[in-house]
Amino acid sequence: MKEECLPQGFSWSGHHCGLKSDSNSPDYSLIVSDRDAVVAGVYTQNLICAAPVNLCRSRTPGTQARAIVTNSGNANACTGSRGIQDAQQMAADVAALLGIEAEQVLVMSTGIIGEFLPMEKLIPASAEGVGSLASGLEAFLDSANGILTTDQGRKTAGSIVETSQGIVRIAAMAKGAGMIGPNMATMLAAVTTDANLSQESAQQILKRAVDKSFNCISVEGHTSTNDTVLLLANGVANSLPLTGDDLDKVSAEVEKTLIQLAKQIPADGEGATHLIDILVQGAASKADAKQIAETIGSSNLVKTCIAGNDPNWGRIASAAGYAGVQFNVQGLKLRLNGMLLFEGGEPCPFDAEKVSKSMAESESVLIEIELDEGAEEARIWTSDLTTAYVVFNSDYHT
Amino acid sequence: MKEECLPQGFSWSGHHCGLKSDSNSPDYSLIVSDRDAVVAGVYTQNLICAAPVNLCRSRTPGTQARAIVTNSGNANACTGSRGIQDAQQMAADVAALLGIEAEQVLVMSTGIIGEFLPMEKLIPASAEGVGSLASGLEAFLDSANGILTTDQGRKTAGSIVETSQGIVRIAAMAKGAGMIGPNMATMLAAVTTDANLSQESAQQILKRAVDKSFNCISVEGHTSTNDTVLLLANGVANSLPLTGDDLDKVSAEVEKTLIQLAKQIPADGEGATHLIDILVQGAASKADAKQIAETIGSSNLVKTCIAGNDPNWGRIASAAGYAGVQFNVQGLKLRLNGMLLFEGGEPCPFDAEKVSKSMAESESVLIEIELDEGAEEARIWTSDLTTAYVVFNSDYHT
Repeated sequence: MKEECLPQGFSWSGHHCGLKSDSNSPDYSLIVSDRDAVVAGVYTQNLICAAPVNLCRSRTPGTQARAIVTNSGNANACTGSRGIQDAQQMAADVAALLGIEAEQVLVMSTGIIGEFLPMEKLIPASAEGVGSLASGLEAFLDSANGILTTDQGRKTAGSIVETSQGIVRIAAMAKGAGMIGPNMATMLAAVTTDANLSQESAQQILKRAVDKSFNCISVEGHTSTNDTVLLLANGVANSLPLTGDDLDKVSAEVEKTLIQLAKQIPADGEGATHLIDILVQGAASKADAKQIAETIGSSNLVKTCIAGNDPNWGRIASAAGYAGVQFNVQGLKLRLNGMLLFEGGEPCPFDAEKVSKSMAESESVLIEIELDEGAEEARIWTSDLTTAYVVFNSDYHT
Repeated sequence: MKEECLPQGFSWSGHHCGLKSDSNSPDYSLIVSDRDAVVAGVYTQNLICAAPVNLCRSRTPGTQARAIVTNSGNANACTGSRGIQDAQQMAADVAALLGIEAEQVLVMSTGIIGEFLPMEKLIPASAEGVGSLASGLEAFLDSANGILTTDQGRKTAGSIVETSQGIVRIAAMAKGAGMIGPNMATMLAAVTTDANLSQESAQQILKRAVDKSFNCISVEGHTSTNDTVLLLANGVANSLPLTGDDLDKVSAEVEKTLIQLAKQIPADGEGATHLIDILVQGAASKADAKQIAETIGSSNLVKTCIAGNDPNWGRIASAAGYAGVQFNVQGLKLRLNGMLLFEGGEPCPFDAEKVSKSMAESESVLIEIELDEGAEEARIWTSDLTTAYVVFNSDYHT
């Protein structure tokens, strides 16, 4: 993330307010636009969704957003009507301090499910958050730290696009280590840009980019109650709303930025030692390709053999076989890190030591499935499954 | 498994023939009926299915079966045309020794995928297997041992039913620790009875019982290439085919026996410390209830918190929420070992230490979801997820 990618007209802050027990661990984050910004949102499909998700759903898409306030350490999920009041209060406190309307503030929360927010900590947190807002890289990184839960590291990505109306900047942050961590929860992301976008364009661009990025990753496939991706576009960089080629360029760049950001999540999956990159080609439809990729990517037997650098391709082939997609098994080819292991219904002779060594040496292991059904493809990214994941998620929390 | 449950007119054997490296570990099993028996079969839904599954599919249902030969240590899956020949050879060798037709023999295999069967070991194995056939309990248990792979313990169940035509006996054996184990594979089961059943009744009874038993369990949801359940009914106990009440009684008893057998599989799941018993009630349809139960049961986050005796009900509620079934969240009640934790969209006050203690003290943890949508229900059984599972399945095998 380079300073030059920071969009103009935004300020950020992040600090520790006491929701997490470790005082070195930031748990409050603020993003503020100097002027009214177009806002778009994409949310969890879980029926049981958190109070801040309900709040954001009612405020997006929109044209007058000014701020995103995020807390980590508590998801404010399964908290009933009091949870809704607390989320509204978080927005109202920030709004009062900034002199704006409560409805101009979006809220994200991540952390433990089923406990009420400690508002006595969040009220002073807002004052400190607003007081420490700044526009430089350090403030942006503080803000990106403030949304983390069990993540090993901060997740940011940025980009610059040249348009006919001048340079546009995109800076994004995300969190997520398990879809729901041990006590913690959720994938959250905030994308800021100084591009001038209409409300419709912003929502379309975000939806399309999320489909190609965050919707293609998993750690363990457990859809959270709080998943939220927000886009704020304040238009400072362009005098008129972008259209045509300019819009396409910005759209492509948002997509690239979100893919870069999304891949950091399974790479940093709880206890993960490999990113697993799964490419399915030659399918009759995109839906078929994605179904096979997701079935392989959610198999614990595949995830454990990748963790063990074991080229146990039978587990991968059999996962493809129970994906619920019809295909001719004779036409299936299976490659691991580029080496062909299974073709025409029979095992290929291969140097197991060599394949294993290549897995051990890669941070990212590539599984390729080639079918003989058509020309459609899909790609997903997931984490391997290690004992560290289980230890992490078995810890008694209550 | 009591000796009195052993059906008449059957003999069994099991021994070590060298497919598994541990010479104390039986890997060959034989079941023989003295006379032609009705045979029924239920198989894996995986597109990529093993050679012995293809062989059995072509021979069931039928009326002239005489034997089931099973090997463990090698699944004979993904082995192309040579695999088919090898499975046929296994049946033919047993048939020649017994003086019957090859088509009267069924074959099951379980073990590593993608390697050819070592026929030089299986040919002498058949001679030894046929030579040591006997009709007592010891021989039955030898046979039940011979089908195991990574199982910690033998899995058997038996029952007796009184019919108007005299006593009928049912004895069944199964294997399965992971749906696909580390090097090993599959759930296999063989059910023997001396009931006199028509081919149609046998197939119906088996299908119905499998739906209520083996189709309700999982370890990690990875459908194997080799899953097979066979029923042999040789009719020795009754002079005429059973009908009416007699048939219903036998059907109910086969179902009870298979449920008893099936629950032993996740209880002995690789590394498992708890059986997880998931009951969903009040659903609009049975399919909805099962979908929710299976989504909860396949969540690693649920499985790890049960392993850790952590009453982290947020993970359970959120898994219900992303199951893809519409329901009113306000009407959901969630109980863990009988204690109410979540109701009306809000957490219930509960003694976390007490719930945790009750989990720690139970071999089987009961998750109950009550919806307010209708009167349908479903029940499934699965394993918790421990570090031992991951260690077991990450071991480099090739």
